[in-house]
Amino acid sequence: MPVYADPDEGVTVSAYHLRSWTEQLLQQIRTPPDLAASVAEVLVASDLRGIASHGTARLAQYLKLVSAGVLDPTARAVKEGGKPALARFNACNGWGQPAARIAADDAIQRARDYGAAISLVRNTNHYGIAGWYAMRMAREGLVGISLTNAAAMVAPTRARIPMLGTNPIAVAAPAGRFGMVVLDMATSTVPRGRIEVAARRGESIPEGWAIGPDGSASLTPEAALKGALQPLGGSESSGGYKGYGLALVVELLTGVLAGAACGPHILGLFSTEGNSDLGQFFMAIDPDVLDAPHSFESRLESLLAELTAAPLIPNAPGPVLYPGQPEAERAAYQEARGIALDRATHATLLGLANDYGVPLPPVQNLPRT
Amino acid sequence: MPVYADPDEGVTVSAYHLRSWTEQLLQQIRTPPDLAASVAEVLVASDLRGIASHGTARLAQYLKLVSAGVLDPTARAVKEGGKPALARFNACNGWGQPAARIAADDAIQRARDYGAAISLVRNTNHYGIAGWYAMRMAREGLVGISLTNAAAMVAPTRARIPMLGTNPIAVAAPAGRFGMVVLDMATSTVPRGRIEVAARRGESIPEGWAIGPDGSASLTPEAALKGALQPLGGSESSGGYKGYGLALVVELLTGVLAGAACGPHILGLFSTEGNSDLGQFFMAIDPDVLDAPHSFESRLESLLAELTAAPLIPNAPGPVLYPGQPEAERAAYQEARGIALDRATHATLLGLANDYGVPLPPVQNLPRT
Repeated sequence: MPVYADPDEGVTVSAYHLRSWTEQLLQQIRTPPDLAASVAEVLVASDLRGIASHGTARLAQYLKLVSAGVLDPTARAVKEGGKPALARFNACNGWGQPAARIAADDAIQRARDYGAAISLVRNTNHYGIAGWYAMRMAREGLVGISLTNAAAMVAPTRARIPMLGTNPIAVAAPAGRFGMVVLDMATSTVPRGRIEVAARRGESIPEGWAIGPDGSASLTPEAALKGALQPLGGSESSGGYKGYGLALVVELLTGVLAGAACGPHILGLFSTEGNSDLGQFFMAIDPDVLDAPHSFESRLESLLAELTAAPLIPNAPGPVLYPGQPEAERAAYQEARGIALDRATHATLLGLANDYGVPLPPVQNLPRT
Repeated sequence: MPVYADPDEGVTVSAYHLRSWTEQLLQQIRTPPDLAASVAEVLVASDLRGIASHGTARLAQYLKLVSAGVLDPTARAVKEGGKPALARFNACNGWGQPAARIAADDAIQRARDYGAAISLVRNTNHYGIAGWYAMRMAREGLVGISLTNAAAMVAPTRARIPMLGTNPIAVAAPAGRFGMVVLDMATSTVPRGRIEVAARRGESIPEGWAIGPDGSASLTPEAALKGALQPLGGSESSGGYKGYGLALVVELLTGVLAGAACGPHILGLFSTEGNSDLGQFFMAIDPDVLDAPHSFESRLESLLAELTAAPLIPNAPGPVLYPGQPEAERAAYQEARGIALDRATHATLLGLANDYGVPLPPVQNLPRT
């Protein structure tokens, strides 16, 4: 399970102030206030949960896409029709976060009437953490599912080059005293960011994470960064074809079903060569259609009570956790204490503050470890 | 990817004859002819695809459940209501296969009208290969999803004992000249059957497959069989919490959502102590709601054409495959040549033939290797 800890050096900033600052910054580049609020909310939620790679650290790249004219900060998603349980939206190449939120909310409404509903989004951009939209559904008492495709970084089993994205799967559900179950996982063994961290620290990486440019298993992060990530499970002999299969299924339900870009054709977040045209999938399921209110939730709570009380393996680093627990604990801590930004992210945000004339809110130095 | 080959010793029998024999056998124990045909069709389809563990080799255990009075061979599934996109069925503790087929077919019909639809089934039994129901939907031009919970064999990350089933995920979709994509995977690294095979052959097993009864990684199949399977990804350091998360999500969408037995409370296929009360989930999505007919299918075909032509890693055992390809090839071969039954399975079926007075159809010896 991921462990969230403060960086060695950096600052803290309140979630409230970081959110307001992000909104102002986005408005400086012509984003309408409601869309800016939507982007800021998802980015700061990611920072709060400890997923720094998907939070405000992404702003600099987002702004490059806008400057390059490959993301339209003023565009609004439009519904393209469908049927009650399967609708499609065109994000018109605008911000991914508000388009995804509109699509997810539409699915929530239709799920209340029909029991379950899917929204697809095409012609969209990066939407932040997949789990945010699933959690939005779970907060309404629904089971929520959120999927997106992404730029090709993962090599299918036996292939030497990246052909599929890290294509995450997010599922959330209300869980009584446990809050929520929130599974939010890439279908690669690790995200690319984990390998970048190993490179910075001069560490080797375990087998099953990546292959080098020649296609052989890579144990150095440098070769891995020139090669491709491996799907969940690693190589063929350790079941990596299952991770490949999951990544392909996510692609099939997002890019292929929505009619967006697919597989190796996705330019992705770090290219300014053209539009991303990502495809996304949102599904809401209303358990109360079948049972008395909250009976689903209380059954899930009972299951989690049993799982988290299971006897442990030798040298377990702690009790059995449920998906989303470490992130929820990190969010509660950072909501109270402020969000920790590492030195590099802080410097990037200071640069944006200068460039766009939106001063950063007050920060506090993290205690040096 | 799995490789399917004939056993060292055994016989072949035509799929047609094996299906008829299975139907007759099931009718001998009071199964109505239409339900018997449904069970036989799924079991023989599994044998055809090379998944011998889920085929007619299971009949002996099925019959034990009936003899013990914990599976009612005459029961028929009834719909318990819901809404157009989310319905629930009660299998009334009858055969899992016909109940699942009725639920899947109902979801297909509703998906045509509403774009997508889910059927849940509770109070049911083992339904054979999860992929069969997803394939049934894909044959109708739909994306099909099929999930089931199962008796606890998998230890959650950090836990020492099995708490969740191998909870498979099956997704199928029509794919033009590639036939279908059929992902049908357990959320454990390997199924228990793979470890039983290693035990019979006196082989050791790799790390990431299982833990022994003391909770430490097991490299001997004997200890593994007394312990628990590990979730996909293996131990915590290699991302096994993702497999655990997927298994939990399957449990949440099947047992918990359907209101069936859950996690450690499932007795499962090999217990005659009580009813299985499994929970199952079926979803159909109709892509033609959004686009011209077959445009989804032709986009998926294009993606598969690219994936399967990717340059290969050194010493790749063959080209990049798509999920379901090895099984479809094995099915075509065995449809023509006859289904290979290993000696042990053949002996079991002969025993049933004797016990129930239903002579086995003609078989041919496999050439000795």
